Amino acid sequence: MLKLFHAWGSCSLAPMIALEEAGADYEVAVLSTRDGDQRRAEYLAINPKGRVPALVTDRGVLTENPAILAWIAQAYPDARLAPLDDPWAFGQAQAFNSYLCATVHVAHAHKHRGYRWTDDKQAQAELTRKVPETMSACFQLIEDEMLMGPYVLGKAFSICDAYLFTLADWLEGDDVDPRQFPKVHEHRERVRVRPAVSKALAQQPA
Amino acid sequence: MLKLFHAWGSCSLAPMIALEEAGADYEVAVLSTRDGDQRRAEYLAINPKGRVPALVTDRGVLTENPAILAWIAQAYPDARLAPLDDPWAFGQAQAFNSYLCATVHVAHAHKHRGYRWTDDKQAQAELTRKVPETMSACFQLIEDEMLMGPYVLGKAFSICDAYLFTLADWLEGDDVDPRQFPKVHEHRERVRVRPAVSKALAQQPA
Repeated sequence: MLKLFHAWGSCSLAPMIALEEAGADYEVAVLSTRDGDQRRAEYLAINPKGRVPALVTDRGVLTENPAILAWIAQAYPDARLAPLDDPWAFGQAQAFNSYLCATVHVAHAHKHRGYRWTDDKQAQAELTRKVPETMSACFQLIEDEMLMGPYVLGKAFSICDAYLFTLADWLEGDDVDPRQFPKVHEHRERVRVRPAVSKALAQQPA
Repeated sequence: MLKLFHAWGSCSLAPMIALEEAGADYEVAVLSTRDGDQRRAEYLAINPKGRVPALVTDRGVLTENPAILAWIAQAYPDARLAPLDDPWAFGQAQAFNSYLCATVHVAHAHKHRGYRWTDDKQAQAELTRKVPETMSACFQLIEDEMLMGPYVLGKAFSICDAYLFTLADWLEGDDVDPRQFPKVHEHRERVRVRPAVSKALAQQPA
Protein backbone atom coordinates (compact mmCIF):
# COMPACT_ATOMS: atom_id res chain seq x y z
CA MET A 1 0.00 0.00 0.00
CA LEU A 2 1.15 3.56 -0.65
CA LYS A 3 2.39 5.46 2.38
CA LEU A 4 2.46 9.25 2.41
CA PHE A 5 4.71 11.04 4.88
CA HIS A 6 2.77 14.18 5.69
CA ALA A 7 2.85 17.14 8.05
CA TRP A 8 -0.24 19.21 8.77
CA GLY A 9 0.19 22.80 7.63
CA SER A 10 2.72 21.76 5.00
CA CYS A 11 2.54 21.29 1.24
CA SER A 12 2.12 17.53 1.64
CA LEU A 13 -1.62 18.20 1.84
CA ALA A 14 -1.53 18.48 -1.97
CA PRO A 15 -0.60 14.84 -2.68
CA MET A 16 -2.97 13.74 0.10
CA ILE A 17 -5.81 15.45 -1.74
CA ALA A 18 -4.66 13.97 -5.04
CA LEU A 19 -4.61 10.48 -3.52
CA GLU A 20 -8.15 11.01 -2.22
CA GLU A 21 -9.30 12.29 -5.62
CA ALA A 22 -7.69 9.24 -7.24
CA GLY A 23 -9.46 6.88 -4.86
CA ALA A 24 -6.07 5.42 -3.96
CA ASP A 25 -5.51 2.94 -1.17
CA TYR A 26 -2.93 4.69 1.00
CA GLU A 27 -1.92 5.28 4.56
CA VAL A 28 -0.60 8.47 6.12
CA ALA A 29 2.39 8.78 8.43
CA VAL A 30 2.14 12.12 10.18
CA LEU A 31 5.33 13.97 11.08
CA SER A 32 5.54 17.00 13.32
CA THR A 33 7.89 19.45 11.63
CA ARG A 34 7.64 21.61 14.74
CA ASP A 35 9.22 18.74 16.71
CA GLY A 36 11.80 18.18 13.97
CA ASP A 37 10.54 14.69 13.06
CA GLN A 38 11.67 15.28 9.47
CA ARG A 39 15.30 15.50 10.57
CA ARG A 40 15.35 12.28 12.62
CA ALA A 41 17.55 9.44 11.37
CA GLU A 42 14.64 7.11 10.73
CA TYR A 43 12.99 9.62 8.40
CA LEU A 44 16.26 10.65 6.71
CA ALA A 45 16.67 6.98 5.79
CA ILE A 46 13.41 7.36 3.81
CA ASN A 47 13.98 10.88 2.49
CA PRO A 48 17.51 12.22 2.96
CA LYS A 49 16.27 15.71 2.07
CA GLY A 50 14.53 15.88 5.45
CA ARG A 51 11.38 17.34 3.96
CA VAL A 52 7.81 16.32 3.37
CA PRO A 53 6.13 14.99 1.32
CA ALA A 54 7.61 11.58 0.61
CA LEU A 55 5.49 8.90 -1.00
CA VAL A 56 6.55 5.31 -0.47
CA THR A 57 5.50 3.10 -3.39
CA ASP A 58 6.22 -0.53 -4.22
CA ARG A 59 9.00 0.74 -6.52
CA GLY A 60 10.62 3.00 -3.92
CA VAL A 61 10.31 6.50 -2.51
CA LEU A 62 9.20 9.49 -4.54
CA THR A 63 9.74 13.09 -3.39
CA GLU A 64 8.96 16.62 -4.64
CA ASN A 65 5.36 17.67 -5.15
CA PRO A 66 5.45 18.23 -8.93
CA ALA A 67 6.83 14.70 -9.37
CA ILE A 68 4.53 13.03 -6.83
CA LEU A 69 1.43 14.74 -8.19
CA ALA A 70 2.25 13.81 -11.80
CA TRP A 71 2.94 10.24 -10.72
CA ILE A 72 -0.43 9.99 -8.95
CA ALA A 73 -2.14 11.27 -12.10
CA GLN A 74 -0.31 8.68 -14.21
CA ALA A 75 -0.82 5.82 -11.76
CA TYR A 76 -4.58 6.44 -11.56
CA PRO A 77 -5.45 7.49 -15.11
CA ASP A 78 -9.17 6.84 -14.61
CA ALA A 79 -9.30 9.75 -12.15
CA ARG A 80 -8.26 12.12 -14.99
CA LEU A 81 -6.12 14.29 -12.73
CA ALA A 82 -3.87 15.60 -15.53
CA PRO A 83 -3.97 15.89 -19.35
CA LEU A 84 -1.81 12.81 -19.78
CA ASP A 85 -2.42 12.32 -23.50
CA ASP A 86 -1.34 15.80 -24.58
CA PRO A 87 2.34 16.57 -23.90
CA TRP A 88 1.85 20.29 -24.33
CA ALA A 89 -1.11 20.51 -21.94
CA PHE A 90 0.77 18.24 -19.53
CA GLY A 91 3.71 20.65 -19.84
CA GLN A 92 1.45 23.54 -18.86
CA ALA A 93 0.34 21.58 -15.79
CA GLN A 94 3.95 20.85 -14.87
CA ALA A 95 4.91 24.49 -15.42
CA PHE A 96 2.16 25.61 -13.06
CA ASN A 97 3.23 23.14 -10.40
CA SER A 98 6.88 24.10 -10.84
CA TYR A 99 5.96 27.73 -10.25
CA LEU A 100 4.17 26.80 -7.02
CA CYS A 101 7.11 24.66 -5.91
CA ALA A 102 10.06 26.87 -6.85
CA THR A 103 8.63 30.37 -6.47
CA VAL A 104 5.44 30.48 -4.34
CA HIS A 105 6.49 27.90 -1.75
CA VAL A 106 9.96 29.46 -1.60
CA ALA A 107 8.47 32.91 -1.01
CA HIS A 108 6.36 31.51 1.83
CA ALA A 109 9.31 29.67 3.37
CA HIS A 110 11.16 32.92 3.96
CA LYS A 111 8.72 33.68 6.77
CA HIS A 112 9.72 30.95 9.22
CA ARG A 113 12.59 29.17 7.50
CA GLY A 114 14.99 32.03 6.80
CA TYR A 115 17.66 30.00 8.64
CA ARG A 116 17.99 28.00 5.45
CA TRP A 117 19.57 31.01 3.75
CA THR A 118 21.20 32.99 6.58
CA ASP A 119 22.40 32.39 10.14
CA ASP A 120 21.92 36.06 11.01
CA LYS A 121 18.82 36.66 13.15
CA GLN A 122 18.37 40.24 11.95
CA ALA A 123 18.56 39.14 8.32
CA GLN A 124 16.02 36.39 9.06
CA ALA A 125 13.68 39.05 10.45
CA GLU A 126 14.15 41.06 7.26
CA LEU A 127 13.20 38.00 5.20
CA THR A 128 10.05 37.55 7.28
CA ARG A 129 9.15 41.19 6.74
CA LYS A 130 8.93 40.95 2.95
CA VAL A 131 6.81 37.78 2.77
CA PRO A 132 3.42 39.53 2.45
CA GLU A 133 4.80 41.48 -0.52
CA THR A 134 6.34 38.49 -2.32
CA MET A 135 3.35 36.23 -1.68
CA SER A 136 1.00 38.96 -2.94
CA ALA A 137 3.09 39.33 -6.10
CA CYS A 138 2.97 35.57 -6.70
CA PHE A 139 -0.78 35.37 -6.27
CA GLN A 140 -1.35 38.46 -8.42
CA LEU A 141 0.47 36.65 -11.24
CA ILE A 142 -1.59 33.51 -10.67
CA GLU A 143 -4.77 35.61 -10.64
CA ASP A 144 -3.91 37.55 -13.79
CA GLU A 145 -2.06 35.03 -15.93
CA MET A 146 -2.37 31.44 -14.78
CA LEU A 147 -5.72 30.45 -13.29
CA MET A 148 -7.93 29.81 -16.31
CA GLY A 149 -11.03 29.06 -14.28
CA PRO A 150 -13.05 27.52 -12.92
CA TYR A 151 -10.03 25.23 -12.37
CA VAL A 152 -6.37 25.99 -12.98
CA LEU A 153 -6.23 24.29 -16.37
CA GLY A 154 -9.80 25.20 -17.34
CA LYS A 155 -12.93 23.09 -17.05
CA ALA A 156 -11.50 20.01 -15.35
CA PHE A 157 -10.12 19.57 -11.85
CA SER A 158 -6.46 18.47 -11.89
CA ILE A 159 -3.42 17.96 -9.68
CA CYS A 160 -2.74 21.69 -10.13
CA ASP A 161 -5.90 22.50 -8.18
CA ALA A 162 -4.91 20.33 -5.24
CA TYR A 163 -1.56 22.11 -5.10
CA LEU A 164 -2.91 25.64 -5.56
CA PHE A 165 -5.56 25.08 -2.89
CA THR A 166 -2.87 23.95 -0.45
CA LEU A 167 -0.66 26.98 -0.96
CA ALA A 168 -3.52 29.50 -1.21
CA ASP A 169 -4.64 28.36 2.23
CA TRP A 170 -1.40 29.83 3.60
CA LEU A 171 -2.28 33.40 2.58
CA GLU A 172 -3.92 34.55 5.82
CA GLY A 173 -0.99 33.15 7.82
CA ASP A 174 1.33 35.17 5.59
CA ASP A 175 -0.68 38.35 6.29
CA VAL A 176 -2.18 38.49 2.82
CA ASP A 177 -5.92 38.96 2.37
CA PRO A 178 -7.00 36.32 -0.18
CA ARG A 179 -9.96 38.48 -1.22
CA GLN A 180 -7.46 40.68 -3.10
CA PHE A 181 -7.43 37.85 -5.62
CA PRO A 182 -11.06 37.05 -6.39
CA LYS A 183 -10.39 34.20 -8.83
CA VAL A 184 -7.92 32.53 -6.48
CA HIS A 185 -10.25 33.04 -3.53
CA GLU A 186 -13.26 31.57 -5.32
CA HIS A 187 -11.12 28.71 -6.56
CA ARG A 188 -9.96 27.96 -3.03
CA GLU A 189 -13.50 27.76 -1.70
CA ARG A 190 -14.62 25.72 -4.76
CA VAL A 191 -11.89 23.17 -4.09
CA ARG A 192 -12.42 23.10 -0.33
CA VAL A 193 -15.92 21.68 -0.62
CA ARG A 194 -15.00 18.81 -2.94
CA PRO A 195 -15.71 15.50 -1.18
CA ALA A 196 -12.11 14.27 -1.57
CA VAL A 197 -10.73 17.49 -0.13
CA SER A 198 -13.15 17.44 2.80
CA LYS A 199 -12.15 13.85 3.46
CA ALA A 200 -8.46 14.77 3.52
CA LEU A 201 -8.99 17.80 5.74
CA ALA A 202 -11.20 15.82 8.14
CA GLN A 203 -8.19 13.69 9.09
CA GLN A 204 -6.50 16.66 10.75
CA PRO A 205 -6.67 16.45 14.55
CA ALA A 206 -8.72 19.26 16.09
CA MET B 1 9.97 26.77 -35.46
CA LEU B 2 10.65 26.60 -31.75
CA LYS B 3 12.14 29.73 -30.20
CA LEU B 4 14.05 29.59 -26.93
CA PHE B 5 14.49 32.75 -24.90
CA HIS B 6 17.86 32.28 -23.29
CA ALA B 7 20.43 34.20 -21.24
CA TRP B 8 24.04 33.10 -21.04
CA GLY B 9 25.07 32.16 -17.52
CA SER B 10 21.47 31.24 -16.64
CA CYS B 11 19.60 27.95 -16.29
CA SER B 12 18.18 28.31 -19.82
CA LEU B 13 21.31 26.52 -21.03
CA ALA B 14 19.62 23.29 -19.90
CA PRO B 15 16.75 23.36 -22.43
CA MET B 16 19.19 24.59 -25.10
CA ILE B 17 21.28 21.46 -24.53
CA ALA B 18 18.14 19.30 -24.53
CA LEU B 19 17.03 20.83 -27.85
CA GLU B 20 20.46 20.09 -29.33
CA GLU B 21 20.37 16.53 -27.99
CA ALA B 22 16.90 16.12 -29.52
CA GLY B 23 18.07 17.39 -32.89
CA ALA B 24 15.29 19.96 -32.76
CA ASP B 25 14.92 22.77 -35.25
CA TYR B 26 14.96 25.86 -33.03
CA GLU B 27 16.18 29.41 -32.84
CA VAL B 28 17.58 31.24 -29.84
CA ALA B 29 16.65 34.73 -28.69
CA VAL B 30 19.35 35.92 -26.33
CA LEU B 31 18.41 38.24 -23.47
CA SER B 32 20.85 40.09 -21.27
CA THR B 33 19.64 39.70 -17.71
CA ARG B 34 22.36 42.14 -16.66
CA ASP B 35 20.69 44.78 -18.81
CA GLY B 36 17.26 43.77 -17.51
CA ASP B 37 15.94 42.55 -20.87
CA GLN B 38 13.76 40.02 -19.04
CA ARG B 39 11.76 42.82 -17.41
CA ARG B 40 11.04 44.78 -20.61
CA ALA B 41 7.41 44.99 -21.75
CA GLU B 42 8.03 43.07 -24.97
CA TYR B 43 9.41 40.09 -23.05
CA LEU B 44 6.81 40.28 -20.28
CA ALA B 45 4.20 39.88 -23.03
CA ILE B 46 5.81 36.50 -23.78
CA ASN B 47 6.60 35.47 -20.20
CA PRO B 48 4.94 37.60 -17.51
CA LYS B 49 7.21 36.02 -14.90
CA GLY B 50 10.12 38.01 -16.31
CA ARG B 51 12.47 35.05 -16.18
CA VAL B 52 14.25 32.77 -18.60
CA PRO B 53 13.83 30.23 -20.06
CA ALA B 54 10.69 30.55 -22.13
CA LEU B 55 10.10 28.23 -25.06
CA VAL B 56 7.72 29.43 -27.77
CA THR B 57 6.02 26.51 -29.51
CA ASP B 58 3.25 26.37 -32.10
CA ARG B 59 0.84 25.74 -29.19
CA GLY B 60 2.02 28.68 -27.09
CA VAL B 61 4.68 29.54 -24.54
CA LEU B 62 6.08 27.07 -22.05
CA THR B 63 8.07 28.14 -18.97
CA GLU B 64 9.85 26.47 -16.02
CA ASN B 65 12.75 24.13 -16.69
CA PRO B 66 11.21 20.90 -15.32
CA ALA B 67 8.21 21.42 -17.61
CA ILE B 68 10.19 22.52 -20.68
CA LEU B 69 12.68 19.67 -20.35
CA ALA B 70 9.94 17.05 -19.97
CA TRP B 71 8.11 18.52 -22.95
CA ILE B 72 11.24 18.33 -25.12
CA ALA B 73 11.68 14.68 -24.10
CA GLN B 74 8.05 13.96 -25.01
CA ALA B 75 8.07 15.96 -28.25
CA TYR B 76 11.22 14.17 -29.52
CA PRO B 77 10.74 10.63 -28.23
CA ASP B 78 13.33 9.18 -30.63
CA ALA B 79 16.05 11.05 -28.73
CA ARG B 80 15.19 9.02 -25.60
CA LEU B 81 15.79 11.94 -23.24
CA ALA B 82 13.53 10.63 -20.45
CA PRO B 83 11.99 7.29 -19.38
CA LEU B 84 8.64 8.19 -20.92
CA ASP B 85 7.12 4.70 -20.81
CA ASP B 86 7.62 4.14 -17.07
CA PRO B 87 5.66 6.57 -14.86
CA TRP B 88 7.73 5.75 -11.79
CA ALA B 89 11.08 6.27 -13.53
CA PHE B 90 9.67 9.43 -15.12
CA GLY B 91 8.65 10.53 -11.63
CA GLN B 92 12.21 10.05 -10.42
CA ALA B 93 13.44 12.22 -13.30
CA GLN B 94 10.88 14.90 -12.45
CA ALA B 95 11.80 14.71 -8.76
CA PHE B 96 15.46 15.27 -9.60
CA ASN B 97 14.65 18.24 -11.82
CA SER B 98 12.29 19.68 -9.19
CA TYR B 99 15.09 19.51 -6.63
CA LEU B 100 17.41 21.40 -8.98
CA CYS B 101 14.70 23.99 -9.70
CA ALA B 102 13.27 24.57 -6.23
CA THR B 103 16.28 23.96 -3.96
CA VAL B 104 19.62 24.15 -5.83
CA HIS B 105 18.74 27.04 -8.12
CA VAL B 106 17.10 28.87 -5.22
CA ALA B 107 20.23 28.42 -3.08
CA HIS B 108 22.35 29.86 -5.90
CA ALA B 109 19.99 32.78 -6.45
CA HIS B 110 20.59 34.03 -2.91
CA LYS B 111 24.06 35.17 -4.02
CA HIS B 112 23.08 37.92 -6.45
CA ARG B 113 19.29 38.02 -6.25
CA GLY B 114 18.69 38.48 -2.54
CA TYR B 115 16.62 41.55 -3.44
CA ARG B 116 13.84 39.09 -4.30
CA TRP B 117 13.43 38.27 -0.60
CA THR B 118 14.59 41.41 1.22
CA ASP B 119 15.09 45.11 0.47
CA ASP B 120 17.71 45.43 3.23
CA LYS B 121 21.25 45.64 1.81
CA GLN B 122 22.84 44.19 4.94
CA ALA B 123 20.46 41.23 4.88
CA GLN B 124 21.23 40.71 1.18
CA ALA B 125 24.93 40.55 2.07
CA GLU B 126 24.13 37.95 4.72
CA LEU B 127 22.31 35.87 2.12
CA THR B 128 25.31 36.06 -0.20
CA ARG B 129 27.58 34.95 2.61
CA LYS B 130 25.85 31.60 3.15
CA VAL B 131 25.68 30.53 -0.52
CA PRO B 132 28.88 28.44 -0.53
CA GLU B 133 27.49 26.47 2.44
CA THR B 134 24.02 25.89 1.00
CA MET B 135 25.31 25.04 -2.48
CA SER B 136 27.82 22.61 -0.94
CA ALA B 137 25.05 20.93 1.05
CA CYS B 138 22.92 20.57 -2.09
CA PHE B 139 25.73 19.04 -4.11
CA GLN B 140 26.72 16.73 -1.26
CA LEU B 141 23.18 15.35 -1.33
CA ILE B 142 23.33 14.97 -5.11
CA GLU B 143 26.72 13.24 -4.80
CA ASP B 144 25.62 10.88 -2.02
CA GLU B 145 22.00 10.13 -2.86
CA MET B 146 20.90 11.15 -6.33
CA LEU B 147 23.52 10.77 -9.07
CA MET B 148 23.39 7.09 -9.97
CA GLY B 149 26.20 7.28 -12.51
CA PRO B 150 27.48 7.50 -15.07
CA TYR B 151 24.40 9.63 -15.75
CA VAL B 152 21.85 10.94 -13.25
CA LEU B 153 19.31 8.20 -13.90
CA GLY B 154 21.89 5.49 -14.57
CA LYS B 155 23.21 4.26 -17.91
CA ALA B 156 21.39 6.61 -20.25
CA PHE B 157 21.78 10.36 -20.75
CA SER B 158 18.56 12.25 -19.99
CA ILE B 159 17.14 15.73 -19.51
CA CYS B 160 18.34 15.49 -15.88
CA ASP B 161 21.95 15.50 -17.09
CA ALA B 162 21.48 18.64 -19.16
CA TYR B 163 20.04 20.38 -16.09
CA LEU B 164 22.61 19.10 -13.58
CA PHE B 165 25.48 20.07 -15.91
CA THR B 166 24.09 23.60 -16.17
CA LEU B 167 23.81 24.13 -12.41
CA ALA B 168 27.05 22.31 -11.53
CA ASP B 169 28.87 24.74 -13.80
CA TRP B 170 27.92 27.50 -11.34
CA LEU B 171 29.91 25.96 -8.46
CA GLU B 172 33.19 27.85 -8.96
CA GLY B 173 31.28 31.14 -9.24
CA ASP B 174 29.60 30.29 -5.94
CA ASP B 175 33.02 29.68 -4.29
CA VAL B 176 32.55 25.93 -4.11
CA ASP B 177 35.31 23.61 -5.36
CA PRO B 178 33.53 21.04 -7.55
CA ARG B 179 36.29 18.50 -6.86
CA GLN B 180 34.75 18.05 -3.39
CA PHE B 181 32.10 16.06 -5.24
CA PRO B 182 33.97 13.58 -7.44
CA LYS B 183 30.90 11.98 -9.02
CA VAL B 184 29.33 15.36 -9.83
CA HIS B 185 32.65 16.67 -11.12
CA GLU B 186 33.25 13.69 -13.40
CA HIS B 187 29.65 13.88 -14.57
CA ARG B 188 30.08 17.53 -15.45
CA GLU B 189 33.14 16.88 -17.57
CA ARG B 190 31.50 13.80 -19.15
CA VAL B 191 28.51 15.91 -20.21
CA ARG B 192 30.61 18.88 -21.34
CA VAL B 193 32.29 16.91 -24.15
CA ARG B 194 29.07 15.55 -25.66
CA PRO B 195 28.70 16.87 -29.22
CA ALA B 196 25.31 18.44 -28.52
CA VAL B 197 26.62 20.21 -25.42
CA SER B 198 29.70 21.48 -27.24
CA LYS B 199 27.44 22.76 -30.00
CA ALA B 200 25.26 24.64 -27.51
CA LEU B 201 28.24 26.11 -25.65
CA ALA B 202 29.94 27.16 -28.89
CA GLN B 203 27.11 29.62 -29.54
CA GLN B 204 28.19 31.75 -26.57
CA PRO B 205 29.98 34.91 -27.70
CA ALA B 206 33.63 35.05 -26.59
